[in-house]
Amino acid sequence: MSKLHEECGLFGIYDRDGFDCAHLTYYALFALQHRGQESAGIAVNDDGVIIYHKDKGLVPDVFNEVVLQHLKGRAAIGHVRYSASDKVREDAQPLVTRYKKGTLATAYNGAIADPIGERTKLESDGAIFQTSSDTEIINYYLARERIRTHTIEEALSNVLKKLKGGYSLLVMSPRKLIAARDPLGYRPLCIGKKQNTYIFASETCALDAIGADYVRDVEPGEIVIADENGLHSITENCSGKSALCIFEYIYFARPDSVIEGTSVYEARVHAGHALAKSAPVDADLVIGVPDSGLCAAIGYAEESGIPYGTGLIKNRYIGRTFIQPSQDMREKSVDIKLNALAANLRGKRVVLVDDSIVRGTTCHKLIKMLKKAGATEVHMRISSPLFLWPCYFGTDIPSRDELAAYKYSEEEMCKNFGADSLAFLRIEDLASLVPGREKGFCEACFTGKYDIEIPQNRSLKSFQERRFSENE
Amino acid sequence: MSKLHEECGLFGIYDRDGFDCAHLTYYALFALQHRGQESAGIAVNDDGVIIYHKDKGLVPDVFNEVVLQHLKGRAAIGHVRYSASDKVREDAQPLVTRYKKGTLATAYNGAIADPIGERTKLESDGAIFQTSSDTEIINYYLARERIRTHTIEEALSNVLKKLKGGYSLLVMSPRKLIAARDPLGYRPLCIGKKQNTYIFASETCALDAIGADYVRDVEPGEIVIADENGLHSITENCSGKSALCIFEYIYFARPDSVIEGTSVYEARVHAGHALAKSAPVDADLVIGVPDSGLCAAIGYAEESGIPYGTGLIKNRYIGRTFIQPSQDMREKSVDIKLNALAANLRGKRVVLVDDSIVRGTTCHKLIKMLKKAGATEVHMRISSPLFLWPCYFGTDIPSRDELAAYKYSEEEMCKNFGADSLAFLRIEDLASLVPGREKGFCEACFTGKYDIEIPQNRSLKSFQERRFSENE
Amino acid sequence: MSKLHEECGLFGIYDRDGFDCAHLTYYALFALQHRGQESAGIAVNDDGVIIYHKDKGLVPDVFNEVVLQHLKGRAAIGHVRYSASDKVREDAQPLVTRYKKGTLATAYNGAIADPIGERTKLESDGAIFQTSSDTEIINYYLARERIRTHTIEEALSNVLKKLKGGYSLLVMSPRKLIAARDPLGYRPLCIGKKQNTYIFASETCALDAIGADYVRDVEPGEIVIADENGLHSITENCSGKSALCIFEYIYFARPDSVIEGTSVYEARVHAGHALAKSAPVDADLVIGVPDSGLCAAIGYAEESGIPYGTGLIKNRYIGRTFIQPSQDMREKSVDIKLNALAANLRGKRVVLVDDSIVRGTTCHKLIKMLKKAGATEVHMRISSPLFLWPCYFGTDIPSRDELAAYKYSEEEMCKNFGADSLAFLRIEDLASLVPGREKGFCEACFTGKYDIEIPQNRSLKSFQERRFSENE
Amino acid sequence: MSKLHEECGLFGIYDRDGFDCAHLTYYALFALQHRGQESAGIAVNDDGVIIYHKDKGLVPDVFNEVVLQHLKGRAAIGHVRYSASDKVREDAQPLVTRYKKGTLATAYNGAIADPIGERTKLESDGAIFQTSSDTEIINYYLARERIRTHTIEEALSNVLKKLKGGYSLLVMSPRKLIAARDPLGYRPLCIGKKQNTYIFASETCALDAIGADYVRDVEPGEIVIADENGLHSITENCSGKSALCIFEYIYFARPDSVIEGTSVYEARVHAGHALAKSAPVDADLVIGVPDSGLCAAIGYAEESGIPYGTGLIKNRYIGRTFIQPSQDMREKSVDIKLNALAANLRGKRVVLVDDSIVRGTTCHKLIKMLKKAGATEVHMRISSPLFLWPCYFGTDIPSRDELAAYKYSEEEMCKNFGADSLAFLRIEDLASLVPGREKGFCEACFTGKYDIEIPQNRSLKSFQERRFSENE
Repeated sequence: MSKLHEECGLFGIYDRDGFDCAHLTYYALFALQHRGQESAGIAVNDDGVIIYHKDKGLVPDVFNEVVLQHLKGRAAIGHVRYSASDKVREDAQPLVTRYKKGTLATAYNGAIADPIGERTKLESDGAIFQTSSDTEIINYYLARERIRTHTIEEALSNVLKKLKGGYSLLVMSPRKLIAARDPLGYRPLCIGKKQNTYIFASETCALDAIGADYVRDVEPGEIVIADENGLHSITENCSGKSALCIFEYIYFARPDSVIEGTSVYEARVHAGHALAKSAPVDADLVIGVPDSGLCAAIGYAEESGIPYGTGLIKNRYIGRTFIQPSQDMREKSVDIKLNALAANLRGKRVVLVDDSIVRGTTCHKLIKMLKKAGATEVHMRISSPLFLWPCYFGTDIPSRDELAAYKYSEEEMCKNFGADSLAFLRIEDLASLVPGREKGFCEACFTGKYDIEIPQNRSLKSFQERRFSENE
Repeated sequence: MSKLHEECGLFGIYDRDGFDCAHLTYYALFALQHRGQESAGIAVNDDGVIIYHKDKGLVPDVFNEVVLQHLKGRAAIGHVRYSASDKVREDAQPLVTRYKKGTLATAYNGAIADPIGERTKLESDGAIFQTSSDTEIINYYLARERIRTHTIEEALSNVLKKLKGGYSLLVMSPRKLIAARDPLGYRPLCIGKKQNTYIFASETCALDAIGADYVRDVEPGEIVIADENGLHSITENCSGKSALCIFEYIYFARPDSVIEGTSVYEARVHAGHALAKSAPVDADLVIGVPDSGLCAAIGYAEESGIPYGTGLIKNRYIGRTFIQPSQDMREKSVDIKLNALAANLRGKRVVLVDDSIVRGTTCHKLIKMLKKAGATEVHMRISSPLFLWPCYFGTDIPSRDELAAYKYSEEEMCKNFGADSLAFLRIEDLASLVPGREKGFCEACFTGKYDIEIPQNRSLKSFQERRFSENE
Repeated sequence: MSKLHEECGLFGIYDRDGFDCAHLTYYALFALQHRGQESAGIAVNDDGVIIYHKDKGLVPDVFNEVVLQHLKGRAAIGHVRYSASDKVREDAQPLVTRYKKGTLATAYNGAIADPIGERTKLESDGAIFQTSSDTEIINYYLARERIRTHTIEEALSNVLKKLKGGYSLLVMSPRKLIAARDPLGYRPLCIGKKQNTYIFASETCALDAIGADYVRDVEPGEIVIADENGLHSITENCSGKSALCIFEYIYFARPDSVIEGTSVYEARVHAGHALAKSAPVDADLVIGVPDSGLCAAIGYAEESGIPYGTGLIKNRYIGRTFIQPSQDMREKSVDIKLNALAANLRGKRVVLVDDSIVRGTTCHKLIKMLKKAGATEVHMRISSPLFLWPCYFGTDIPSRDELAAYKYSEEEMCKNFGADSLAFLRIEDLASLVPGREKGFCEACFTGKYDIEIPQNRSLKSFQERRFSENE
Repeated sequence: MSKLHEECGLFGIYDRDGFDCAHLTYYALFALQHRGQESAGIAVNDDGVIIYHKDKGLVPDVFNEVVLQHLKGRAAIGHVRYSASDKVREDAQPLVTRYKKGTLATAYNGAIADPIGERTKLESDGAIFQTSSDTEIINYYLARERIRTHTIEEALSNVLKKLKGGYSLLVMSPRKLIAARDPLGYRPLCIGKKQNTYIFASETCALDAIGADYVRDVEPGEIVIADENGLHSITENCSGKSALCIFEYIYFARPDSVIEGTSVYEARVHAGHALAKSAPVDADLVIGVPDSGLCAAIGYAEESGIPYGTGLIKNRYIGRTFIQPSQDMREKSVDIKLNALAANLRGKRVVLVDDSIVRGTTCHKLIKMLKKAGATEVHMRISSPLFLWPCYFGTDIPSRDELAAYKYSEEEMCKNFGADSLAFLRIEDLASLVPGREKGFCEACFTGKYDIEIPQNRSLKSFQERRFSENE
């Protein structure tokens, strides 16, 4: 998948062992860097005062030792953000705001269903907005609910009731660290423990990175509060239902993470298995598009019995800001990301596995590269179904007209890409990714069936107007 | 005076001639750089959309050609800010906020009388705050007033009525550029014109820098609106009174500026005249402390007949961030800012003129330096009265206990500094700075008589709590 | 292998088609980034004038579009450098020097046998040195030879005769681009072609990145000149022998490169085959240490019939400057580079393949991580022989006392690492990496047999004295 | 004078009291910043090892506390460099080179008479050059002389004999700090003392900045060596003659410096006296162009009896990199450097004093500004003679055709500038700047009489070819 998602990574820690919260958050955010490369931030609670640092850039670029030394505190939350659209620097999180009862720092991953409606409502009540982030909406509702409730967690519970959408969040108040998922649990959030210290993270790989143990996931609708007494939970918004985004398994999460009890790696291998069953082909080698197609390729190879191998080498320094080759250069075969491994491809019929096709703009070039390197046939297999519908809850999808699967038939795509065959995972096989799961998924991008009502006339880019932007 | 003031510089332009607003604002802010070295920002109105760029640093450091090229628009406002206390990056101005009716950019200079009270009031109504700047309070009030008024200028007029304090401000809405001063006119703001284009600036030196002509000052309480039809004015808050900060003449403004019809240079020369009359001395040479004491020294020389000369040379690269000499180094005579001009001082009895004494920490060293260079006597003359009272409206004064004039008698100061004599401008001579002025000044720092009631128990640093801070 | 090598990457292009040389060099250097992360540089020949830009940092950090736009020219050479020791910024290459006949830019990879001796000789003749790089020695010899020869290539040929060592280099003069390898060909260098334009590169992956075709390798001792007439060659120093560094196949080169006709990927797979034959084990899964052990792991799996799988996930953002976890944090299990894939390891007997062991400091932790993730046995297999001897020709090896294989027996290492078994590739199996090769390799780090005499008492760090250093 | 000079500032310290050499050098270089704004550097001698840091930029930008902490040592030399032409980063000084006997750091101010000839000679002997600086030539000669002499100071003495030109320099060897001036003493260099520690500096203002006492100047041709035993001197190259650059008094040096016993301030005042005598005018006010014309204006006022005053205010933040107004903007009266002080000028006949006219490009605008501010007449007085001849020894003068005084008669200049009269200091009055001086000056830029023979056909820009350049 191209860089089209609009994910974020969250991390929070409430220290009861004397750990260095800022450094642990730093390492955890680095483990979550794949969830957001646009900005990074850490806020700490220094004896009731919230101090923070955030900026555009990757985690190692935003923080240095001097900054981390300043961020001393008993609790910390951190955030990495990805954004497909240009955003103002003010959008970096955590968002720290002062309100009636003190200071709050909020880190957020997801999307609310009707941001324009919510903003309009708040503005009619005298609100002013400085960012284009949903987080500011949440902090406003928290501030207003807090005026008529006794605790911040009560206020948050009321917000969860009202604010339709798919989101996970962390709220740090002067004395508490609170984690929550929307009642349908679109976005993941898990609980970890290191000695007596409780931790929240978008993915378990962040727990592994700092040597913490996985305890359990936050339940959809659950509010979990960590404070000096340990952990307690508010479950009044828990419905028992789930609309976990299936794309977390397919693409977003790191393969070494475990979400709601299921290994991401295994889910992808299972997709490969299912794909091999539903779309078999006679071939000599199965390869994956690095890095997102590799696990499903392993699954395809296992199920099909065709040997798995390396066919494409990815430049391991990709990830930083880079002068992109011009169109002219790309046409002259300049490719800085992937290279075909001719030694392994020469004379072979190849199954090429990728996780999804959104715009489909790079498939043609990839297949041409493989054939130039000696592959005699290239059979493309996609470990997710046809991507046909927009996502309103966190995935940043272009206009439906830009979706390859919406514009073209499978046959047309196959021909356009220069593939010898093309097949997608069947929708009915999505369940096989997580065997035995009874709660559902959000699969709306494949099916068009949304679990939450979407406001009519809502544009895909919810906050379309370039209200204010920062030039750098 | 040491760097203790908390001034800001404002500039706004509504183009009707095809000028490059961002570049003109850039040059104008550079001319106002003395009013604020901590952060700089420019917001432009690009056909109804407000785009901005702001950051910590001096004007030349914050902007480069690429950024200025992006800031295209028909109107622009700019801001330079000084702050004695550590502030968050979010405090840089202009503050751009979205509210019920669109987007506003605000640039502000001054202080409101009861910021904590105002914040508390707004928070009780559900407001959240992201900065520690008064500007956010103003934008909130503007947003709330705007809901029940027909125009932004009406809303602003209501805000002026309610919000006690000493401040000037510029508000840029998608179609208008609005300038206003509080009803007592604590902070300066003038109107300029370049061809058919109207301009607002804190000081006339910014008009000169861009080749604009001075039209007049904005009146205390006046609201002046520039739009495509030209200029019009709302005067319903004008009282005819004035509490213009006398320190604008004494220290803040550039000597080549003209404020409310009076040359700052001449006001300082007049102060020197008055000082020479009230505190004469038999001496061979009058010198000033560069740069703030030079004009008054010229006045002292003129009136006394003692020759004026150069006694101290200032390093002309002072102004940028610099590693300050350690206490140990300072004791070993390391001085990077000023050097005595021995050729001019040797064997002379010197009158040393400075604009004011706040903490008085550098006087001793300065006089020692002059005597080492050969001055036989040093008579210190201060072109403002004893600084005895805190300022709540824009000058960032330390605790009263840190004011030299509060802690020590004139005799003690003279002895501590090692001066042969010491004298201050008399309060009754302040009027002589601006001959013929009938409207008053705010002279509260000398007299303790405030024109606006100060909330009881208001701390000197109004927003004392380090609510959130940014570490860099 | 840890970051102990001192490799460099070279690229050169002599344009005859109107290509943008600087951009192509930029993309090629990015493809060679694995050969050097400390500094990067590009020099272009702009109609006889050599212009250059170089600095510390990764390729994307050193160059931006503005810089590349300035680097216009008909020919270009580029360089990426790695250095284990602190070097002065002046050491960045290409080294551009003016001499009797004009200007030369030189890019260099390797090491000469007796740098101190050579410097001493030159200094006795009045030379002064500004860098700690061998390249400066080469430029001196080139300058001196050039005085008594007719062409720069003749001069270079004389230098190759005299200057013992293992090195490849590119020299750009105002009208020519010249490539050369030392007579034993320690370091790789290949020739590519894109339309009518000739290209030189350390590895073929750089040719692939810019869509150029591989022509052949520069022969050991050969000098190849590209100019407006095309390519010609001087072979008088070619011996027919080869001491190509075997570590290019084992670790240095990218797997998608082809060196002297052999795929690096295949060489590593062959090493895995040989290892599986000589050191079989009964196990359930073969995994590699990413990225350097993956190819050999695939080979081990193929030969042994044990399934290959993913057992360790590497953070894909590793590669940039990063605050390393403190010893205390590492002991508390903070690991930001690798994570075990528990889903794949649980209950399995694992073969863990890595390319080499130098200090062996991370093996213990890695095996502990695998066992914590559920591996019941971990059998370590190293796809190169015991690393016992220092390298003087490009690999930056610590004192022999730091080599794990020198300090400990295989049994001790196995125990220290906590492995269930440990085996290395046998020296006699090194030949199997490149089947059919008749020319030899340099295998001195395994055997202690050096093809070039090493000066007695030569220290491992040839230029030990910290002659001058730059603090940043 | 516009920024046309190519000066440098030197500072050296040999500590015998436990001072922090790097910090003292930093403060001293800041005091010398007016002599060079392009690059700055400090080298220290850390127990025989020379460590250094240098870069493009102003002193406060090149160094920070971390860097200074690293630069620990018993001796230090520092350098600030100005350059009118684009130079490579490698040209920053001190130049640190290793040669036969160890390491040398050299800091240099001036120019040798025949750089191309010297380079050619050295290149014929096998030298290679990495910079475009004369310093590299000097280090080569030092290295070559050192081979056949017993000490570095002997070698330096031989170099002084051979190398025609006008230059001062500091050489730091592992155990000594050596200062020298060419036999005619074109550039200043003085000796200071702080407790038992000896210091060298281009100007005395650097001594004052660090609290050191002025001892004496280094004599023309003298070599002064500071080491652990104190100071000693080699005088075999001293001729007793002097060709000190008169422009040091007129423009280069800081007014608070004393050169060869004469106050720079007083020399300028004397020039003003002489000018008032030779070119009197009936006027109301004497003003100077800040900062370079102020002292002579004071002198003119004293002698003429016309009151001295401030007529132009300079933006005190000038000095840093700045986006210059476009030609179009300048025509629209955008001026960011100077502003007229209308309050002082209105209705007055003004004498405007500047130090020199080189290209004369800004005079017209300046006079227009004064008249717009109300001056009824502007009489321009220049405190140096007509600038008619190129300088080969340190001043970077454009082609003779660009010199206003060469292209136009005085009458034409006066008319072009829009002045009411124009007069220059007479050549015969130059002596009056330093009453009683018997040794001469270099006044070649006014007279065309050079004390050293200039190679025929020498171009003004001695090292014209853009041999290699760095793009940033």
